[in-house]
Amino acid sequence: MAVYTHLGAEDLARLIAQYDVGELVSAKGIAEGVSNSNWLVETIGAEGSGARFILTLYERRIDYADLPYFLDLLDHLSAKGCPVPRTMHDRAGASFRMVEGKAAALIEFLPGVSPTRPTAAQAHSVGAVLARMHLAARDFPLSRANAMDFAASAAILDACGADRLASIHPDLPAMLAHAHSAAAIDLSALPASQTHTDLFPDNVLMRGDKVTGLIDFYFACTGPMVLDLAVTHAAWCFDAAGQYIADCGTALVAGYESIRSLEPAEVALFPAIAKGACLRFVASRAEDWLETPDDALVTRKDPMQFVERWRFYDEAGAGLLA
Amino acid sequence: MAVYTHLGAEDLARLIAQYDVGELVSAKGIAEGVSNSNWLVETIGAEGSGARFILTLYERRIDYADLPYFLDLLDHLSAKGCPVPRTMHDRAGASFRMVEGKAAALIEFLPGVSPTRPTAAQAHSVGAVLARMHLAARDFPLSRANAMDFAASAAILDACGADRLASIHPDLPAMLAHAHSAAAIDLSALPASQTHTDLFPDNVLMRGDKVTGLIDFYFACTGPMVLDLAVTHAAWCFDAAGQYIADCGTALVAGYESIRSLEPAEVALFPAIAKGACLRFVASRAEDWLETPDDALVTRKDPMQFVERWRFYDEAGAGLLA
Repeated sequence: MAVYTHLGAEDLARLIAQYDVGELVSAKGIAEGVSNSNWLVETIGAEGSGARFILTLYERRIDYADLPYFLDLLDHLSAKGCPVPRTMHDRAGASFRMVEGKAAALIEFLPGVSPTRPTAAQAHSVGAVLARMHLAARDFPLSRANAMDFAASAAILDACGADRLASIHPDLPAMLAHAHSAAAIDLSALPASQTHTDLFPDNVLMRGDKVTGLIDFYFACTGPMVLDLAVTHAAWCFDAAGQYIADCGTALVAGYESIRSLEPAEVALFPAIAKGACLRFVASRAEDWLETPDDALVTRKDPMQFVERWRFYDEAGAGLLA
Repeated sequence: MAVYTHLGAEDLARLIAQYDVGELVSAKGIAEGVSNSNWLVETIGAEGSGARFILTLYERRIDYADLPYFLDLLDHLSAKGCPVPRTMHDRAGASFRMVEGKAAALIEFLPGVSPTRPTAAQAHSVGAVLARMHLAARDFPLSRANAMDFAASAAILDACGADRLASIHPDLPAMLAHAHSAAAIDLSALPASQTHTDLFPDNVLMRGDKVTGLIDFYFACTGPMVLDLAVTHAAWCFDAAGQYIADCGTALVAGYESIRSLEPAEVALFPAIAKGACLRFVASRAEDWLETPDDALVTRKDPMQFVERWRFYDEAGAGLLA
């Protein structure tokens, strides 16, 4: 969470001048984004009207071949009235430019703050917006494979190995077999669309109970819509102590179904898919944990949080959406 | 440069509600401030008008007893038309509040960007604004001693010791004697006011050649005005390679004198005071260098940059302002 690349005022002004967005007035590096540098940029038009944008410089963790998918998807969804930021295009029509050897995009700034203790009313709104996004994205012409699908989670845990997983927590190695079970689930018949797949509360901007923005689409991919709902469920419906917040869970699904009804196959597979979603975060967190030195200043996220959520879904089973 | 303390949306909203500034709409942690956590906060009033502020949470490197000096000085200068951000006062009239055991202040947001390669026209503007600030601050009722005065620089270099200074660069130990010479200069007869003493380009916001804000007053103190001009000269008038930019230097002083003429004693002492100002940064950078492990991720600032500037002032001598 930092600004990794220094861009001076003159560099920023030159970059902004490539867009038809007025003149640079202010730029503050913001402490968001794990693999990008971001600035909150303000411009003023010839007629005196102000506008704000997020300027993102993509550090090397993103495959630049994926940028048209991410950036065009924002435009597609925004044009259909979904609360996502538009991508600004430069005077030549490009959605991103190269600056200091890195890709840069100028994205609409949206107001709102991310809830840290979401209420049921907020979960309901997020569910509804997620369903609207899924429906709006169905005719999006590009597609992107899910690099973090269930097979990838199993492969990551395999690469960690049972011994090193046990060094983090003795209960982790047991998740290896569960990850392989998840990878064996046949998701091919489930209704698909473009999905966010990382819709944690920090990726949602809200004013009160209203969603003002879904942001950070850099895990977005083509896949089963119910997987996106399951990720969102696992991300929104547990408190800091790991306890399931039933009214949030119920509200999230009700909000989703107020816009798009789940099909019987999606309902039937929901607990298994939610367990797979948990293992996706167990895998990435375990990998990060093993790659981060014990004495690093970075706070490591505990993979066991999502083992506990996996256990919740395992126990809840079919009763959860009943 | 980071956000050190996590404040959730609900915490921020509760804090903002203590001020008469409308309702919280947006908050972004910004990557500014070495010892503070900062957020760019947006609010909306009942009548729909938006306003922006910098919320600063003071981490422990600042003595809270100094906060009234720093925050009231901003109000004093702003009321006199200097381009500095006003401190917002809460509903009880306080200029700062305690949040999670730390002091927090809400400060007016000012537009503008910090130049990285200042032009002579920009240096002229900064000189003029610095002089206006000095004149406006003369009747400020509080005072604060300069914790980084020339005696403090000498003491810091003494504490580093010649051997450890030599481990950074063989030319550093010679600066010890020079620091003691600077500490022996009698500054008591020089005209004094409240001074910024850290007016590097990153602490100045500009739009084109116009100064829109002087910020980051956390080294401000009561002292000789010409020392503040000398610090600003040393901070603004050298390029990235360490070469003196004569037209910037001339413009800075001319801008200053367009508002306030230097007295003969100030002109006479300028080279010696500029050398002392350089040693203040040599000292703090040498100390940081020795305290920062070689393999730390933090970029250490090279104390030798200011040894080279010291040499420039030593050679230029009385000819500089002639």
